[in-house]
Amino acid sequence: MKKIINNVEDIVPEMISGLVRTNSDLLKEIEGTTAVVRNDKLFSEHKQVGIVSGGGSGHEPLHAGFVGDGMLSAAVAGEVFTSPTPDQIYEAICAVDQGLGVLLIVKNYSGDIMNFDMAKEMAEADDIKIATVVVDDDISVKNSEFTQGKRGVAGTALVEKIIGAAARLGESLDELVKLGKSVVDNTKTIGIALHAATVPAVGHPGFELKDDEIEYGIGIHNERGYSVEKIQPAKELAHELIEKIIKEFDDKSGKFAVLINGMGGTPLMEQYIFANNVLDELESKNIDVEFSKVGNLVTSLDMQGISLTIMKANDDWIDKLKEPVVTIGW
Amino acid sequence: MKKIINNVEDIVPEMISGLVRTNSDLLKEIEGTTAVVRNDKLFSEHKQVGIVSGGGSGHEPLHAGFVGDGMLSAAVAGEVFTSPTPDQIYEAICAVDQGLGVLLIVKNYSGDIMNFDMAKEMAEADDIKIATVVVDDDISVKNSEFTQGKRGVAGTALVEKIIGAAARLGESLDELVKLGKSVVDNTKTIGIALHAATVPAVGHPGFELKDDEIEYGIGIHNERGYSVEKIQPAKELAHELIEKIIKEFDDKSGKFAVLINGMGGTPLMEQYIFANNVLDELESKNIDVEFSKVGNLVTSLDMQGISLTIMKANDDWIDKLKEPVVTIGW
Repeated sequence: MKKIINNVEDIVPEMISGLVRTNSDLLKEIEGTTAVVRNDKLFSEHKQVGIVSGGGSGHEPLHAGFVGDGMLSAAVAGEVFTSPTPDQIYEAICAVDQGLGVLLIVKNYSGDIMNFDMAKEMAEADDIKIATVVVDDDISVKNSEFTQGKRGVAGTALVEKIIGAAARLGESLDELVKLGKSVVDNTKTIGIALHAATVPAVGHPGFELKDDEIEYGIGIHNERGYSVEKIQPAKELAHELIEKIIKEFDDKSGKFAVLINGMGGTPLMEQYIFANNVLDELESKNIDVEFSKVGNLVTSLDMQGISLTIMKANDDWIDKLKEPVVTIGW
Repeated sequence: MKKIINNVEDIVPEMISGLVRTNSDLLKEIEGTTAVVRNDKLFSEHKQVGIVSGGGSGHEPLHAGFVGDGMLSAAVAGEVFTSPTPDQIYEAICAVDQGLGVLLIVKNYSGDIMNFDMAKEMAEADDIKIATVVVDDDISVKNSEFTQGKRGVAGTALVEKIIGAAARLGESLDELVKLGKSVVDNTKTIGIALHAATVPAVGHPGFELKDDEIEYGIGIHNERGYSVEKIQPAKELAHELIEKIIKEFDDKSGKFAVLINGMGGTPLMEQYIFANNVLDELESKNIDVEFSKVGNLVTSLDMQGISLTIMKANDDWIDKLKEPVVTIGW
């Protein structure tokens, strides 16, 4: 394993330190934690429901890179591929509560669900109004190694963007929960890997693929997917993923949003080529794409691969996706 | 070789098509070329010196990802690691000239210098006022495979940001040339690779490193550097690069800007850990860092590695680096 790190056990605090020190106008660390909270002037001036997300590290820029006015209020980083602890999540909740309540956005992994629930109980004991939206956009497998039910993957970025924009506009906690559930229900993702990620503490790739193989349906923690196949041209990959995703939507009329997400080790060049094929394929199916985004948003360390997220959206959600924000990662 | 592509010969047009289709509010293709030009409303409303850059593809988001109000007016993409042709550059010049002249920002590679010079002559024949700033920030080697003199690498992003901001504020072509030369003179970069890039048409990595080796001083086209060494902890890498770079500056007082740049296959996690070490090391030397940025800005396909750019700056340049812009890649 070759990585630009120091001691394996210091990876997360050192990463958070680097992130905060190079973006101190946007972010600060919550003392004694690896959670970050908004540090811009508007944060204290503009009262709104606080939006907190988090999870294991290794998916950067998710979540800390989405902290900023109009997106997340705070983000909590666990160890690599490991849920943050309830006390860290609780600290983040306290740091962002302005009396209007706090919404937790949690990817559907058993560890995250458990720890965010415990933090929620701690906050409730303090009379903080609090609720949770669980993201489970990954349609590739029904249950998996670390989940009951579907996994939460790249669609989380879109959910955080829409909820963040709505919170900024003054929607109440109850309204945000309703919005969040509806957005999650309409957000579907599948990912593929050309090469698995190497977790620093493990020291070798999570699984092996031959020189001409790809894995369909991977998760963001080196979870295997539904099939290993020979590598195909980008347009065949786009066709395969779109066929799988699009049948999840009963109604194919109306407006759609698309995210082409790099897994960390795949350059933008390949992401844009794939995006071009995705748009061709959706056009041929008369799917109306009103918003599209390409980039490394929800990664899996150095994994080589890509995921496709398709969301059935409405004008309001499209507007919220397009709303400018100042964050590191969106 | 596993890559998410279709035919090797279609890589650049397909990439540009994907880029433009997913960012049509920002960019449009110049018909019959693989050059892109601003497509935002302000572009025609606000008269300024046009800023054109470009070069071989494979370094995304450089340059097309830096096209937008306050940065580049247009960018010209050649084949992978190959200069764009003079006629494509000429088309971009014509597309952005508003009567106040056009500045070309060119990385110091023999092919780019030659083709941008020919395009400049073509534009001069049309009575377009035109000038060039050549970026040669890479201090790791004196001459190299594809250059006379030092190479132009990641510092190019900082040069484009400062010149773009100055042009937006109405500086004249002559002023921009003077500014650009001064910024380039004060911008120094070295990069390291853990794994070479695979050029699609070649099909295998540009050079081989053992499992525990890194290469110091690489270029962005798989050019070898000054030394192959055993991999070190991130803080030792930071120390090595800073020692080499900082002695290039006679005067270590005043303000500095820093760019930690990922080469395409290295995740943000490692970039932030390295950034943390870079800031520690510079602090220990009493170097005053007033601007810092981390991310994949000037990449080399799927190369795993990182580069460090240090710029001796002044208040004006720091302000211009911090000025918000709407681009894909900054």
